[in-house]
Amino acid sequence: MEKFKAVLQLQSQYRSALSYGLITLLTAGGEKIFSTVVFECPCNATWNLPYGLVFLLVPALALFLLGYALSARTWRLLTGCCFQSTSESSSPRLHRAFVCMQISGMAAVASLTWVAVALLGGSFYVCAASGSTLMATRLCKNRDPGCVDKLPQVPCKQEAEMLDMQSELKAQSQVFGWVLIAAVIILVLLVKSIIRCISPISYLQLQFWKIYVEKEKQILQSQATEHATQLAKETVRCFFECANPNECKTPSREAWEQIS
Amino acid sequence: MEKFKAVLQLQSQYRSALSYGLITLLTAGGEKIFSTVVFECPCNATWNLPYGLVFLLVPALALFLLGYALSARTWRLLTGCCFQSTSESSSPRLHRAFVCMQISGMAAVASLTWVAVALLGGSFYVCAASGSTLMATRLCKNRDPGCVDKLPQVPCKQEAEMLDMQSELKAQSQVFGWVLIAAVIILVLLVKSIIRCISPISYLQLQFWKIYVEKEKQILQSQATEHATQLAKETVRCFFECANPNECKTPSREAWEQIS
Amino acid sequence: MEKFKAVLQLQSQYRSALSYGLITLLTAGGEKIFSTVVFECPCNATWNLPYGLVFLLVPALALFLLGYALSARTWRLLTGCCFQSTSESSSPRLHRAFVCMQISGMAAVASLTWVAVALLGGSFYVCAASGSTLMATRLCKNRDPGCVDKLPQVPCKQEAEMLDMQSELKAQSQVFGWVLIAAVIILVLLVKSIIRCISPISYLQLQFWKIYVEKEKQILQSQATEHATQLAKETVRCFFECANPNECKTPSREAWEQIS
Repeated sequence: MEKFKAVLQLQSQYRSALSYGLITLLTAGGEKIFSTVVFECPCNATWNLPYGLVFLLVPALALFLLGYALSARTWRLLTGCCFQSTSESSSPRLHRAFVCMQISGMAAVASLTWVAVALLGGSFYVCAASGSTLMATRLCKNRDPGCVDKLPQVPCKQEAEMLDMQSELKAQSQVFGWVLIAAVIILVLLVKSIIRCISPISYLQLQFWKIYVEKEKQILQSQATEHATQLAKETVRCFFECANPNECKTPSREAWEQIS
Repeated sequence: MEKFKAVLQLQSQYRSALSYGLITLLTAGGEKIFSTVVFECPCNATWNLPYGLVFLLVPALALFLLGYALSARTWRLLTGCCFQSTSESSSPRLHRAFVCMQISGMAAVASLTWVAVALLGGSFYVCAASGSTLMATRLCKNRDPGCVDKLPQVPCKQEAEMLDMQSELKAQSQVFGWVLIAAVIILVLLVKSIIRCISPISYLQLQFWKIYVEKEKQILQSQATEHATQLAKETVRCFFECANPNECKTPSREAWEQIS
Repeated sequence: MEKFKAVLQLQSQYRSALSYGLITLLTAGGEKIFSTVVFECPCNATWNLPYGLVFLLVPALALFLLGYALSARTWRLLTGCCFQSTSESSSPRLHRAFVCMQISGMAAVASLTWVAVALLGGSFYVCAASGSTLMATRLCKNRDPGCVDKLPQVPCKQEAEMLDMQSELKAQSQVFGWVLIAAVIILVLLVKSIIRCISPISYLQLQFWKIYVEKEKQILQSQATEHATQLAKETVRCFFECANPNECKTPSREAWEQIS
């Protein structure tokens, strides 16, 4: 029992780390499935570049937007913001921009994972690069003159020269992948350090406020459920017994707006 | 026990996301089964285009209509609406249009999934495009003159040039599939953001009303069952004992209409 | 326990959807078994058309009649209707036609599923079409003159030209199958919408009456069993003790007719 409790506490402590890890794993798995089952480079001068880029970027965009859509804080921020945005001072606006940045950061995890895993895998980049004229001039600098025409066939044919160019492109892709991963980690660490550094409250106070916000959410949820049950029971009873409903105390609209 | 409760609460919290995911998975699985078991391109100039389009669009239409038919809210909206539509003011009409849009959105999930998965799979599009004269002129621009006549055979024959055209068509199909997915996600997010943004009530109040409506439905259901049992017992007792039935208080027709 | 209860409630809520789905699955499975095990096209100019049509339509007719026979409401409607049909006013006749239409709709599910699955499978249609003279003139328009004579052999021989015609016929069959499915879904949805739309009672009242009818049936069943047990005990006791039977209150024949 004590063991179980410890596991639960550990889980609540590292919940955000765990969920990030889960998202990363799912995205990486999905990328592997897509690149082996669905992806098939057309090996065609016109279609190679758009095909590769679509597989590299559109799923990342979709994951980014899904990350926004599934975050409850996006909706809390947006709900009713059209009406109240004019009468506010500049301080909540700063706060709003900060929350917006936080949500973007969380939504970007899955999409950056997709791009990084796809670059490390290499097949999307090889296909896209073999159809680009810019890459063609750079790749074929020291090779025979027919190279530029043969380039779109690189991802499909298994000849010696083709395989050579294919492995060069794959190496480029993986180097870009590692550079992307390093850049993202450095950027996130820098931004988080700066924010913590300029924050006016101390570390332990921040911890306390996190616990407080969590608890408040839980208690509000349970109280709201209880209140709603009572109200619903009253309404239904009134309907069947045709009696006049008792007036039930509910918080006013203004009160709701203030606590949101 | 606590773990189990948490799972249940999680399930009730993410129910709509879960059901969307389930619908998407089922549709994708169904599409895979259909495209491998039932689908067989006729490779015939006359029938390729209609055959491919029928497999691409008719199941999507069927899923869309089924989505409408299985939604309880469709029937709640429709029941008896022919009689009361004339005497209403404009405000309920706006509300009705809003609910109608919501139902359409939910019904469209499965049908859009079908089209997207079918386009990513590619076989339906390859078959349809190989029978279209519009595509023939575009595909055969830089090829030999017999290309247009050979085009309908593309999905069936395994020759080098055929495979080349087949992979080009498949690439087009997958690019269109990804574009469709991205467009739908962006559109849904935009519409939802705008709706939330112009809503006059705050986020937490909305949460409270959601809980309330859920509870009210549960309690109304249980109360109605209880009431119906009582009424039915009374009626049957009267029949066997040939006594005069006691008048049982039931809400009038007007009351029912008002709460619907 | 709570989980189990929820499953039961879910089942009672979606019972009709579940039973429709089960019927559809069973019919589709049965069709697959028949078309692979029993069906074997005679490839004969005289017999192809009737053989294919018999496999396509007779099982559908049988399933339609079985649907009628297995519905309890058919027998409730029919029992004793020969005697009382003359003395009724027009209102119950309208109600009777409505119930009759409802039973027909439910009985038609299985038979339409059979036809749709058979058309999607294609083998029955290919056999029937290859024996029809009308199809022969249309299919052989741009082919060599011996085509009409060879047509009945299409479902059996594996030559190049035969396979071409076979795949064209199969494509036609599947297109007709999808058109049938779409047409049926649109028709059902239209009819149901119109019926719901002109109904004078609201959605929630309808829900309440459904619960009421269900409960009344249950209670009538249990009360009738109790009453019959009492009556039978009385009669048997009278027989063995040769005493005069106590008159037991049973509802008269007229009362039974009225509640049916």
